[in-house]
Amino acid sequence: MDRIERLHLINSLSGIKPVNLIGSADADGNENLAIFSSVVHLGSNPGLFGFILRPQGDVRRDTYENIQATGVYTINFVHTTFMKEAHLTSIKAEDNVSEFELSRLTPEHIADFKAPFVKESTIKLGMSFKQEVPIELNGTSLIIGQVEHIILPDGAMDDGGHFDLGAHKVAGLSGLNTYYSLKKEARYPYVRDEFTLEDLE
Amino acid sequence: MDRIERLHLINSLSGIKPVNLIGSADADGNENLAIFSSVVHLGSNPGLFGFILRPQGDVRRDTYENIQATGVYTINFVHTTFMKEAHLTSIKAEDNVSEFELSRLTPEHIADFKAPFVKESTIKLGMSFKQEVPIELNGTSLIIGQVEHIILPDGAMDDGGHFDLGAHKVAGLSGLNTYYSLKKEARYPYVRDEFTLEDLE
Repeated sequence: MDRIERLHLINSLSGIKPVNLIGSADADGNENLAIFSSVVHLGSNPGLFGFILRPQGDVRRDTYENIQATGVYTINFVHTTFMKEAHLTSIKAEDNVSEFELSRLTPEHIADFKAPFVKESTIKLGMSFKQEVPIELNGTSLIIGQVEHIILPDGAMDDGGHFDLGAHKVAGLSGLNTYYSLKKEARYPYVRDEFTLEDLE
Repeated sequence: MDRIERLHLINSLSGIKPVNLIGSADADGNENLAIFSSVVHLGSNPGLFGFILRPQGDVRRDTYENIQATGVYTINFVHTTFMKEAHLTSIKAEDNVSEFELSRLTPEHIADFKAPFVKESTIKLGMSFKQEVPIELNGTSLIIGQVEHIILPDGAMDDGGHFDLGAHKVAGLSGLNTYYSLKKEARYPYVRDEFTLEDLE
C-alpha cells in the first residue's frame, strides 16, 4: 500500500467519528476555528471531554496556543448543513486570518467567555481547559477540558436527557474526509445482570 | 437535572461515537467480549488506536486484565445487523461466563493470536497492547494498542484506502444506548493552502 492509501485506511479503522469545530481566541481576541474528529467522553460528573492534538511543531497549532493563553475553548457540533464549511477549516490559514472568515461560518459570543462559538451549530459546549496528557508513543497529546456551558435548542432534549442526533442533522466523519448523516435505529435499556437477548426485543 | 438525566445528556455531548466490541482472553483461554464507544485514532504510522477504560475497581474489568495477561485484543466493528447482541455485552457477566455465549455472537480465531474476533463483524483489527496512560483527573485510563492485523471484506476498500461505512452497515452510538445507521453524504479533497469554499463544490 502506498503512504496515502495507508493513511486513509488506518484513519478509517476506528469507524464513525464525531466531527466538531473547536473555537478559540488568543489574548488579543484573534479567533481560530479548527475541525477535530477525536473528541471523546471521559466522565460525566464532572463533565469531562478530551481531544487528541497532533505533535507539537508538526503544523502551527493555534488552537493549542489559544487554549493555553485563555484557558477556554468551544466544542461545536458539525451538522450536515455545513459540512463543506467545516471541512475548509482544516486549511493552514496565514497568521491573523480567521478560519471563520475563510469558511464563512459565524462567530457567536456569550458573556464572560473568551472563546467564540459557531452560530450555525445548534449543539455546542463551552469548555475550560483542565489538563494536557502527553502520549509519548507518538508525540500526540490528550487535551482534557471540563464542560462549563451547554447550548442546546429548546426542546431538543427529552425527559431522559436524550436527543436525536439524526433529527438535529448532526454529521459524522470517517477517516479524514468522508462525511455521513445519521439515522436513529434503536434505543436499548441499561443492561441488568439478569438480562438475556429477549429483554432487549 | 437528576443524576441519570445528566449522565445521558453529558454522554451524548460528544456527538456520534464509534461502537466496537473488544475481544480478549485470559491466559487459560477464557474469552471476554465487551462493548466500547471510545476508540480513538492516535496515529497512522505505526497504526495506533486508544480507548478509554473506566476507573479500576469500579466494576470487574476482564478486558483490562486479559490484555495485561496476553498482550493482545481485538477491535470489532458493530454493525446494524447485531446492535442488540452487541449491547447485551455491557452486562456484568459472572466469572467464567463468556459474553459470547450470552450475546450469541460467535468467537473466531486466527493463528498465533490469543484474542477472539467476532465472526459477525466484517471489519476488525487485531491489536497488540503498547501503553496505558493514566488520566489522573478522574481515574480513567487511555489504553493504547498497535494494529497487527486488519480484516476487511474483499473489495471493501477502494483505490484510495476508503470504504463506505454505510454500505457495510456500520453502526454508531450516541450516549450510552442509542444506535444509529450511517449514510455517506460527501467526500471532500484534502484542503490545500489556497483553497476557498468554491474548491469544495
